Amino acid sequence: MGEFELLARIRERLPKPGKRVLLGSGDDAAVTVPAGATVTSVDALVEGVHFRRDLASPAQIGHKALATALSDLAAMGAAPGEAYVVLGLPVDLYEDECLQLLDGMVALAQATETTLAGGDVTRSAELLLAITVVGHAAAPGDLVSRAGARPGDAVVLSGEIGGAAAGLRLLEERGAGASLSPTSAQALRARQLEPRPRLGAGQALARAGATAMIDLSDGLGGDARHLAEQSGAMLRIDAAALPITDGLAEVAAALGHDPLELAAAGGEDYELLACIPPSQLEAATAAVREVEGIALTRIGEVDAGSGVEIRLPGGGRLRAAGFDQLR
Amino acid sequence: MGEFELLARIRERLPKPGKRVLLGSGDDAAVTVPAGATVTSVDALVEGVHFRRDLASPAQIGHKALATALSDLAAMGAAPGEAYVVLGLPVDLYEDECLQLLDGMVALAQATETTLAGGDVTRSAELLLAITVVGHAAAPGDLVSRAGARPGDAVVLSGEIGGAAAGLRLLEERGAGASLSPTSAQALRARQLEPRPRLGAGQALARAGATAMIDLSDGLGGDARHLAEQSGAMLRIDAAALPITDGLAEVAAALGHDPLELAAAGGEDYELLACIPPSQLEAATAAVREVEGIALTRIGEVDAGSGVEIRLPGGGRLRAAGFDQLR
Repeated sequence: MGEFELLARIRERLPKPGKRVLLGSGDDAAVTVPAGATVTSVDALVEGVHFRRDLASPAQIGHKALATALSDLAAMGAAPGEAYVVLGLPVDLYEDECLQLLDGMVALAQATETTLAGGDVTRSAELLLAITVVGHAAAPGDLVSRAGARPGDAVVLSGEIGGAAAGLRLLEERGAGASLSPTSAQALRARQLEPRPRLGAGQALARAGATAMIDLSDGLGGDARHLAEQSGAMLRIDAAALPITDGLAEVAAALGHDPLELAAAGGEDYELLACIPPSQLEAATAAVREVEGIALTRIGEVDAGSGVEIRLPGGGRLRAAGFDQLR
Repeated sequence: MGEFELLARIRERLPKPGKRVLLGSGDDAAVTVPAGATVTSVDALVEGVHFRRDLASPAQIGHKALATALSDLAAMGAAPGEAYVVLGLPVDLYEDECLQLLDGMVALAQATETTLAGGDVTRSAELLLAITVVGHAAAPGDLVSRAGARPGDAVVLSGEIGGAAAGLRLLEERGAGASLSPTSAQALRARQLEPRPRLGAGQALARAGATAMIDLSDGLGGDARHLAEQSGAMLRIDAAALPITDGLAEVAAALGHDPLELAAAGGEDYELLACIPPSQLEAATAAVREVEGIALTRIGEVDAGSGVEIRLPGGGRLRAAGFDQLR
């Protein structure tokens, strides 16, 4: 199947474009009618670096590539708009697998009201997906960067962390889940293979007055440090308050890992870490619960200074630099 | 050098963002203030498929990746705005080469007033560049798709064709240029390695009333067919009128190729093929000459029907299907 034929097959599978898209895939470029502010992010996933074809199905790979890209829009509080997809296809990827990969992407695009508006397909040595996502907001002031945290703000976290790291360990080492129920093990693997971008929660936090926000891709320790550095503030996080996914403790025990380390340094949870004035906390929590069906947990506070400090359950303190070494 | 360190080195080299960019590289996403219509295109270049590292310098590879992406904006008549760059870096690419690649891209970005507003860097087996470019227009109606050609329109071509194909042959087979002056050979190689996106010409043609436009990446034969199909029209092209690059005849003769075949089926010239009412031709030609310093040549006309017909110098006719076989 040549490039043009594959592109035609791909185009057949694309749902109808959203209302912002005047001209979609098939011309020199897509034409869209933007809102007052545009948010753009790019993410690349490469076989062997970001995923393994023996551990994830083509549909899961397609899903995850779009999910991790959309997560950056969630972290800005933007509404998702369009996605542009580069596929690098190795010769040993069957045509059916390629279309399944696309189906995984299309399903998430539909669930999030994202239009797949264009792309490019090429040969490559390994399977590679590079996805550009574009989000919209009525005005730039409606968006939340990493840089606005102020002393006195509460530090909050959406959902639960550690599931993606525990799921990866389960996939790589099946014995690690021996003490888990099949349902728990399956839920952990799904956190690794099919993360959900927190688009509703991100917009709710932005509307509720979040001052700074980031999505957890590298892990809580590293991402909190990015936010602290860009805000010029100190984030004090209470380790005992961290909402840790069920089943993580069992996986950590089976592998001889510290569960806190696995939860906070593991990465890929794609939950949102945000700072918000305490007066807004109740409204934000209710809004996140309503739109996304997940909890918003207060895990610390913003102070003057710089960096990240983790208060350990035993009473000790871990500075970001030390925390970083766990990664 | 780790990913974060490399990203920091890359960010140091980026010029100041353009006025549309409120938040550039370094946050979860870039934030831009768009005009009334946004044009977006994605292009991927992979080592071994689209370029060879033994024939092109890192700076030339960086230049060409951005140039081919920007060429799609030119073909819409859009003003360039932002670019987002994914780099897949193999282990045998030295850090210096990576920064040279970026310098080639930055130089073209500056020359075209394009802001490098974000990106992602990853390991990959081969050198890979995936570039998303975003252009702007005051309103969707200011843009030119492939679909608007009408019977009676003139078919025009910017600049000259065949140079990129001849340049590629010279690079691959040095003997092919024995009868050329060093200056001519160098000019042909530059057409292959450092194409110039016709951004000024594209906007001038759009303002002058072009009804359909495409950039020549696959070659005149194939790209004319795309335009004809999407317009639902017949393009009649006069082979004798084609503006063919100096030196191409010598390269074709040295290799035993038909010069017309090399010129029209070779691809990668990144000139613009447009349709325009004959009444607008004089104004369009003057405008393209003024902004880009190149000719606009009338090479045929649009008729009712479908497909592409090439009138050969000897009096014969070649239909698009046959022309396509030349590729």
